[in-house]
Amino acid sequence: MNAVKDEIHIGLLGLGNVGAGTWEILSNNAAAIAQKTGCRMRVAKVLVRDLHKQRPVDVPVDLLTDSFRDIIDDPTVAIVVEAMGGEHPAKEYICEAIRAGKTVVTANKEVIAKHGKEILQLAAQQGIEVYFEASVGGGIPIIRPLKRCLAANRITEVMGIINGTTNYILSKMTREGKEFDEVLREAQAKGYAESDPSADVDGFDAAYKILILASAAFNKRVSLTDIYREGIRRIGKADIAYAKELGCTIKLLGLADDLGEKINVRVHPVLLPDSHPLAAVDDVFNAILVKGDAVGDVMFYGRGAGSMPTGSAVVADIIDAVRDMRNHVNNNLSCTCFTDAAAAGPDAISAAYYLRLLVDDRAGVLADIAGTLGRESINLAKVIQKKTGDGVAELVFVTDKVEEGRMQAALRNIAAVPGIKETANLIRIVGE
Amino acid sequence: MNAVKDEIHIGLLGLGNVGAGTWEILSNNAAAIAQKTGCRMRVAKVLVRDLHKQRPVDVPVDLLTDSFRDIIDDPTVAIVVEAMGGEHPAKEYICEAIRAGKTVVTANKEVIAKHGKEILQLAAQQGIEVYFEASVGGGIPIIRPLKRCLAANRITEVMGIINGTTNYILSKMTREGKEFDEVLREAQAKGYAESDPSADVDGFDAAYKILILASAAFNKRVSLTDIYREGIRRIGKADIAYAKELGCTIKLLGLADDLGEKINVRVHPVLLPDSHPLAAVDDVFNAILVKGDAVGDVMFYGRGAGSMPTGSAVVADIIDAVRDMRNHVNNNLSCTCFTDAAAAGPDAISAAYYLRLLVDDRAGVLADIAGTLGRESINLAKVIQKKTGDGVAELVFVTDKVEEGRMQAALRNIAAVPGIKETANLIRIVGE
Repeated sequence: MNAVKDEIHIGLLGLGNVGAGTWEILSNNAAAIAQKTGCRMRVAKVLVRDLHKQRPVDVPVDLLTDSFRDIIDDPTVAIVVEAMGGEHPAKEYICEAIRAGKTVVTANKEVIAKHGKEILQLAAQQGIEVYFEASVGGGIPIIRPLKRCLAANRITEVMGIINGTTNYILSKMTREGKEFDEVLREAQAKGYAESDPSADVDGFDAAYKILILASAAFNKRVSLTDIYREGIRRIGKADIAYAKELGCTIKLLGLADDLGEKINVRVHPVLLPDSHPLAAVDDVFNAILVKGDAVGDVMFYGRGAGSMPTGSAVVADIIDAVRDMRNHVNNNLSCTCFTDAAAAGPDAISAAYYLRLLVDDRAGVLADIAGTLGRESINLAKVIQKKTGDGVAELVFVTDKVEEGRMQAALRNIAAVPGIKETANLIRIVGE
Repeated sequence: MNAVKDEIHIGLLGLGNVGAGTWEILSNNAAAIAQKTGCRMRVAKVLVRDLHKQRPVDVPVDLLTDSFRDIIDDPTVAIVVEAMGGEHPAKEYICEAIRAGKTVVTANKEVIAKHGKEILQLAAQQGIEVYFEASVGGGIPIIRPLKRCLAANRITEVMGIINGTTNYILSKMTREGKEFDEVLREAQAKGYAESDPSADVDGFDAAYKILILASAAFNKRVSLTDIYREGIRRIGKADIAYAKELGCTIKLLGLADDLGEKINVRVHPVLLPDSHPLAAVDDVFNAILVKGDAVGDVMFYGRGAGSMPTGSAVVADIIDAVRDMRNHVNNNLSCTCFTDAAAAGPDAISAAYYLRLLVDDRAGVLADIAGTLGRESINLAKVIQKKTGDGVAELVFVTDKVEEGRMQAALRNIAAVPGIKETANLIRIVGE
């Protein structure tokens, strides 16, 4: 435990998006934060890669350092805020800070998702708290609510829109009727998507976040290898138009179910009925829906990214850390997992499905496909058939709820039906 | 500070809606709660009015008592949970429990709104924590998020749907096109509204709750006399139909603004644009939107009442209380007000207005009214005129944003315009 004085020294790692927001808030709201915690926060050192780069925030030059040692070896630094992002060297710096007896606040979903077990066990051994509210949902309070406010509940389900980039892309595709590639390019031009967009559009970022949420919600340690992951590259404007026709919106969700013995955690696009609370969450907004046995459905909504919102979560963690340090308390809320989770795999889940196929425009094909689905006892809720020209027809099937495994089996058989040109998309429907 | 053992004894006051939910959750989730806190919770005594009444929950008869002394004088009881509701004797019991050195958890919005200052000052003197998460928003985490998760922010605005009964009535009026009185009777028959509905429909309940939210959000102690309050009795099906025509929904909101020197806190119906995040919150659901300088808009959504949701918040408070007791910590988060608030009064607020009038159906009346508004420099955004028959016309004016005081002055002048039969309604429009 650190000695606590009336001034807490913070070492800030990184002065990018999150680091700058953290600095701004600590500066702008210094007086109010001092009033709330009973002590002043002072950023003693800021680790940056380039000492001479122009910064959007007004940090005195003498605080900048390009050497991690200047922070880790400074005995006055009580809290290390890791706002660098990326896996390495962030993970190593976090572990070194813990070993040096410093409290850690991090916004790093990748490090917590991949190395949370190691980091939190190390922290427990050292009697150090690690805070990571900012790793999921930007400024939306969600980790602390799961660990504290909803602690009375057995939480059975978490689902959320937890990646702003893909939500922005899907919202824009929906509003403007454009294809994925075109909207992605626009998002890249605006800085909403990276030049290598894979972390977002292939669902890696959402997978890190749903892992962190599921672990906190179920008190079970989820592993990345447990997570089924599917991104949004295959979503076409045709899918979005059909979804609209069906009274639905297409969203990329992180989903986690505690099935009792096992858990099921996944990231994939879904059709959501327009009446679903998550369906109206557009653009860069995030929202997380939690189902507890006592509380029922609770939803948390806000800006899932950005300098100031994420900084808001980082500084909330700093304030909590300072309160605990002043009380000489270790709340042991860093790690709240009691066991490792066992993954049920995607086949354990049932869903209704949206299936879009391109087929030869001739009699009998629809019947053959419907027959193939019927042999797997898959009931159809709706069928839409449209001619696309050139002797090709587009078929959309909406099924009743069926186990994933059975649907995948039917899909393999459908691929062998004569006249099938392309299985354009299979999308799960949730929330009905 | 109480002595902490591996079993915490709880005295439960009341076994109605909230008390029964609390008992249920403590029983159903006993093992998980013990795992989270490191100790067992035991309800040692339950105060009821009638020892022989049939209960929906299975509480052993020997735990029941009709004497508060059995709880207050029991030195093993460390936490008193006040789930009686009503102002008296709940307030006196809470104060006695604090004086006896017991931690208090309460769901009582009326007592906290009316006597919060006295209770929290007494608690501070005694070094006792008082928890009241369940007093607002049922199971929705909101008090702890305001005090902890959003602590980095200067919060400038809170608005919310915080009364389920009125939201149910307005949702049903909207869906079914019925008048207020008819829907109120139906709600009373279903038990969603009290036989004396005043606490809900006249906005008292919402006023208690927005007071508690504003105090926690702004760190300023708000007084009930500071709150402008207007209920939903005057909302007619005509208003709801016109709102729909204008792309809006009518909701009863609690609203609070921190204007800097002064605050403005109020409860009244509003027209909300359908695109507003609160507009889709229907029936008994509650939602609270918070605006912080760093985080932007954050929304919390869920069941605002009911036995199990409210019990979820009560038990979360118990768990936090136990953690703090085991750590021998007083977090001083019961009272987070640094000053008494100064109220700005309703005139300080600007809004767009919806004004519905019944007038003689003859030339010139519309011009006279528009002229009266114009003399107060009130611009019109939209006018709707409809004949109702019998020589009467209905006029709806939508104004641009204008100070409340100017609108009220215009309204007084409009009443004197020849041909005005009735000022049917004046409703503020927010969220545009």
